[in-house]
Parts: sequence; structure tokens; C-alpha cells
Amino acid sequence: MSLIVQKFGGTSVADADRIRNVAKIITDTYKAGNNVVAVVSAQGDTTDDLIAKAAEINPAASKRELDVLLSCGEQISMSLLAMAIQKLGFPVISLTGWQAGLKTDSAYGNARIKQIDTDRLNAELDKGKIVIIAGFQGINKYDDITTLGRGGSDTTAVAFAAALKADLCQIFTDVDGVYTADPRIVSDAVKLDEISYDEMLELASLGAQVLHNRSVELAKKYHVNLEILSSFKNVPGTKVKEVVNVEKMLVRGVTRDNDIARISIIGLPDEPGIAFKIFSLLAQKRINVDIILQSIGRCNTKDLSFTVAKPNLDAALSILNDNINSFKGKSITYDDHISKVSIVGAGMESNPGVAAKMFEALYDANINIQMISTSEIKISVLIDRDDSEKAVKAIHERFKPAD
Amino acid sequence: MSLIVQKFGGTSVADADRIRNVAKIITDTYKAGNNVVAVVSAQGDTTDDLIAKAAEINPAASKRELDVLLSCGEQISMSLLAMAIQKLGFPVISLTGWQAGLKTDSAYGNARIKQIDTDRLNAELDKGKIVIIAGFQGINKYDDITTLGRGGSDTTAVAFAAALKADLCQIFTDVDGVYTADPRIVSDAVKLDEISYDEMLELASLGAQVLHNRSVELAKKYHVNLEILSSFKNVPGTKVKEVVNVEKMLVRGVTRDNDIARISIIGLPDEPGIAFKIFSLLAQKRINVDIILQSIGRCNTKDLSFTVAKPNLDAALSILNDNINSFKGKSITYDDHISKVSIVGAGMESNPGVAAKMFEALYDANINIQMISTSEIKISVLIDRDDSEKAVKAIHERFKPAD
Repeated sequence: MSLIVQKFGGTSVADADRIRNVAKIITDTYKAGNNVVAVVSAQGDTTDDLIAKAAEINPAASKRELDVLLSCGEQISMSLLAMAIQKLGFPVISLTGWQAGLKTDSAYGNARIKQIDTDRLNAELDKGKIVIIAGFQGINKYDDITTLGRGGSDTTAVAFAAALKADLCQIFTDVDGVYTADPRIVSDAVKLDEISYDEMLELASLGAQVLHNRSVELAKKYHVNLEILSSFKNVPGTKVKEVVNVEKMLVRGVTRDNDIARISIIGLPDEPGIAFKIFSLLAQKRINVDIILQSIGRCNTKDLSFTVAKPNLDAALSILNDNINSFKGKSITYDDHISKVSIVGAGMESNPGVAAKMFEALYDANINIQMISTSEIKISVLIDRDDSEKAVKAIHERFKPAD
Repeated sequence: MSLIVQKFGGTSVADADRIRNVAKIITDTYKAGNNVVAVVSAQGDTTDDLIAKAAEINPAASKRELDVLLSCGEQISMSLLAMAIQKLGFPVISLTGWQAGLKTDSAYGNARIKQIDTDRLNAELDKGKIVIIAGFQGINKYDDITTLGRGGSDTTAVAFAAALKADLCQIFTDVDGVYTADPRIVSDAVKLDEISYDEMLELASLGAQVLHNRSVELAKKYHVNLEILSSFKNVPGTKVKEVVNVEKMLVRGVTRDNDIARISIIGLPDEPGIAFKIFSLLAQKRINVDIILQSIGRCNTKDLSFTVAKPNLDAALSILNDNINSFKGKSITYDDHISKVSIVGAGMESNPGVAAKMFEALYDANINIQMISTSEIKISVLIDRDDSEKAVKAIHERFKPAD
């Protein structure tokens, strides 16, 4: 008998019909002789509705109270899903984050999982019950409700799979796997049968919105076998694991991220410690910086450019402008009409021609590259937003398997 | 410094404006130098909406899962109320039933309070915080969420007032106190300044929907000073306590209850144990019986009539018809177009003319009495539904103070 953890996102449980559909998936898995733990997100727009209610009353409400409010979203969907499974005649129990033993730190709104006490969970599984768990939520040492922030339900599922030593963790979503590019942009994008944790991590970080990277990190750390598949189509998905079969295509995926902005600080003095000062300021505000480019400017000054997530742009500009004298910058500019287009593939490192091939594809498509960043398994370029679809298509075409 | 428990019902927190209004009431009480614990119901129709969601998925869902679902209603309103109080600049924390230490038995959907652990609550009050508690909910020994059933938020408020030895428990609602009759029926109904627990108990049982009788029972048992007042009008309400000042009016209230039905069993044998059999059957189905009338019929048989709450009518008829042979009844009839009209007043017992005066008022109004029931402090009559408003007016007119 295997133990399978299944995670269902908000669109998968958006209404009564979809909840019934998810109940069918879960009970089919159970009927096949498996123990099943299902982690569920809030229904469709519930979280947004609750945030709107809070914003109407107090846009500056404490994160503790916001977490109390938002955690209801998953509590509602988990109980409805349990009812749908009861209707099909199977033994089931729903558990909130705290009932399921998920302990976190106290960073309300973005809590980290510290520990999972599986006693209650194991007791319910021993009784032969299907267990439904509210995703995205836990409890801190004060017995206060916390939420895990973006991608929290994926992370919850992987964490329980790790704690329970589950044989498989299936992430059900509205796409049926990981593709070599967004099928809405590239019509001949190919679904991958398998992908490595590292490749998936890069894809997740680079804007492929299939799986949150925190959950992939956790899966890699605890060797959790992941599968990404559709709750609407009964077809095999993409398996994420340590080592994957070599496939025909060297590049595993082409991604695009529109949710970024570039900031440039012009005319910095060419002296030590300047970059450190700037990035410390941003780190204090918890603003992550992505691609960084430092160029020698004119007259012994240099320019520094970097990208931030678009929601952080205003905060970043504000802290930088307030402190422009401390790092002796002349001016600060920004561009929020850009995209980051990336290719990911574990074999890339040992194939020096890959970058050249990507840049050639962009050159042939007459697309200007603003900034470049590389890691062992990915190459990212920053380009104008208007060119981004064209870029993804051109790169995908250049790398696609010659079948 | 006094400790005041305030309870706000669903209409009092129905939308953002009303939540702000409640926040104002609470913080005004706090500013006046009191510790405040506020118990809050779910917003307006939230509970009904959640029940509808459940019914769409599984009309026979387990009560445990229903409680998980329904408890979200209060969790949402308590966090929104806390946010509104934060906005006014006061220290506040919201606590769910389990966080506030409310322990119940395991009768999901209709749980009884077993114990309240006030450690967390007292710790928050010691920090100077206003504490908002989700009404209607608790936790059982399995760490599962329970709800208290009808009137649960009133009961929650009184229970916390008792456990914390509060100086006062204020029940805010959409009426500004207890009236001698429903002001929508009787235009010159008078608001009572004070009423005794016993009188309030009878009024609550008899259909005056101001306060649930479980909460009044609890208040009487633990000597909790209650006040019923409006969250919309800033006027004194009605105080409920052990001993009240004698007022001009002997009868404290005239009530009407439309939510009942009469069942008659015709042609029962005139032998011992028959009534016992019938009421045992109903008790097994947890159906409460109210007014009972047994009459000698013809030919050595008798008829038995009694009233039940209307939602129980179908279940009662079903169990009686299934077992009609066991108690040797000839036929079963029912009437669900009736009302119970009652008068309540502590001084009634020592004033033998009261019943006669009530019956005379009904006679003068040409209203036929079907059944009569009396206790030490109330007299109830069963009449045709169509006569009920006329009856309430006529009785109130007859008993009103001659000022």
C-alpha cells in the first residue's frame, strides 16, 4: 500500500462540480489501494474576496489578523471537499493546518514551516480515512494561525509528503504538466515526461507558474517524488525527481517573466563598497534583486543596473532615492516595460554552444538584448516587453527536437 | 476598572460600515476605562451561504464537517472587527473558540460548553488588549471544532462573562431592549428597564427572539448581569438580573410564536402507559413536546394533543404513524396553522385574576382558544394563526399600565 499526497489548487475546487471532480480523483486513488492525504487551496477567488473585505475596513490591518481571515478560505474548501467524499461513500476527515500539526515560525503572511507533528494524521490514516488538509496555513508557538505566503499550498503538500515519507506527491493544477514553453505562446511546445529538481527550480524561478520554487526546494531537500498533472484531463503529467532520463532536447524549457522591472543607478563613484551599500538597503526592505549588471561609465564613474520583482519597484525606488547621497549616485532610472526570457536545461553547462545559439536566435529575430545572466543550468536575457513573445517563439524553434 | 463582555449579532456586523460602528462601541467602552471582551457572530447571511454551499455538495454531510465549515463565518467577522479596531488605533487581538479556550462536548452542531480555560484570554487582557472572540464555536476533546447551535453566540458571551467574572454582559442586537410585546404588532408596546432571569427565560422560550433561553439559563446559574441593547441606537436597553424593581405592569410581556404545530392522536385506549409510549418515541428522536392536552373521548377512548416546533413536525408524524399500532391509536391529525400567544410576569402566580383577564380579552375579541398551558409565571394559549396579531393586541391592551 502506497501513501500518496495530492494537492489541488484553487481553480480545481472553484465550484461544486469541480469539487465533485476532485473527490472522484481522490477516491479513485484510494480505491486503487492507496492511503491518500489531499492538500487543498481556497476556492477560486475566495482569497481575493477576503483580502478585499479586509482592505475595505483597514488597508493597514496587521498581518496576524489577515492570516486569521485568509486561513478561512482553505478551511471552507477542505470541509466542502470532505463532504463531497462522504457523498461518494468513503471515510474522510478534514484537518486545518493546526489540527494537522503544521508548526511554523511567526512571520505572519509568509511563515516558514518549522515542524510537522504527524500523530493525528497517522492516527486518522490508520483508521483508513482519507485526510483532507487545508493548505497554506499553520500555527506558531503562540497558538496563532499563520499563512505561508505565495505558493503555500504547494509547499504544504510537499512538506506533508516529506514528513509522512509519502511515495508520491501529486500536484494537480489547471495545466497537465511542464512544457518546453508556454503553449499559449508557442503552439508546438512539448510536454516533458520528466524534469530534474534543479531544472524545475530554475523554471519556477523564471516565471513558469506551474509550481512555486519553495515547494521544489523542499522536494529536492527531502527527495520527494513530485508529479505535476491536470485535475481536468486524465493524462500523465510531468515527474520531477533527482535524476531524469536524457531526452532529445538539450534545453528543457523556454520561459518568460513579465513581472519584473529594471532599475539603473547612474554615475556611481568607482570605489569599493558602493554596491554593498545599495544592496544592503534593498535587503533591509526584503527586496530581492535578480540580474545585476555593472558597467564602467564615463569620467571614472560606473552605472549599476539590476532587476526587481515589479511589486517591489516602488519600494525599491523610494529607499534608493531617499539614500542617493549615501552611495553618491547621480540619478536613478527605471524601466518596467521589460521581460526576462530564459532557457533552462541541466546539460547546458557542458555545451558551450548553447548561449551562442540562443543569442543568434534573438539576433535573427532582430531582438535587442539589454542584459544577460547565466547560471549552470539557465541563461536569461532582458529584452523589451513587446519583443517577448517573438523571442520565446524564436528560441523555442531554434532548440526544438529535430523529430 | 470593570470587565465588560459585549456580544454583537450577525446584523450588527453585516457590512463594513456596521463593523466600523461596532468597533466604535467597543473602543468607546474601552476608552471609558473598561477591559472589553467582544463576542461576535458571523456576518449577516454568511452562515446561510455556507449552509447552501454544503447542501449543494452533500445534503447529508456529517455534522463534524458542517461545524468546520460554519465556524469560518465567525472567524471571518472576528478578524474584520479586529482590523476595524486597529484602524481606530487600539490594541486588539481576535481569538477563535479554541484559541479562547472554549471546550465543549462532541455533539457537533449543538455542542454544550464544558469548560473555559481563560489563561490565554487573561494574558491578552493583562496586556491591555481588547479581545474579540468568535461566538458559536468551541473545541472538543479530540481537538475538533464544534458549534453550539441556535443562539450559540449569546451563550458564548454569557459563558465568557461567567468564566471571567465580568461585571456586565451586554448583548447588542437590532432591537433596543425587551418590550412588553412585539412593537411591530403592538404600536404602544413598552420597553422594560429591567426583567428577571425567570421572566426572560419564559419570554425567550415563548418566541420573543431577543435572547436565546440557553444563554439566559446560563446567566441565571452564574449570576451574570445581562443587558440587552441596540447596536444602532445609543439608548439604555433592558437589564436582566436576579431581582427587579416592581413596575406598574403585572404582565411583563405578550409574545407570539408561529413556529409550532399541533399534533392530535385520536382514539387512544384509556389504559396506563400510553402517553409514556408516545412521548418516549418522540424523545428518542430528540423531539421536544410543548403544550399537552389529554381529553376523555367517546367509547372509553381518549385523545391526546400536543405541540412541537414546526421543523420537527414531519419527523414527529413519521415516527408516530410508523408506530401507531404500538400505542393503539385510531388516527393522527395535525394543524400547522396555529400560534401560541403567551403572557409572562413574575407576579402572576399570586394574582389569580390574571388568567381570567387574558381569556376575557380573547373572548371579547372573538378568538377561540384551542389549548391552554400555564406555569408559575406564564400563561400560553393556542389559537388560529389568523387570530394571532389580534390576540396579541387585545391582550396587551387589557394589561397595559394605566398611565
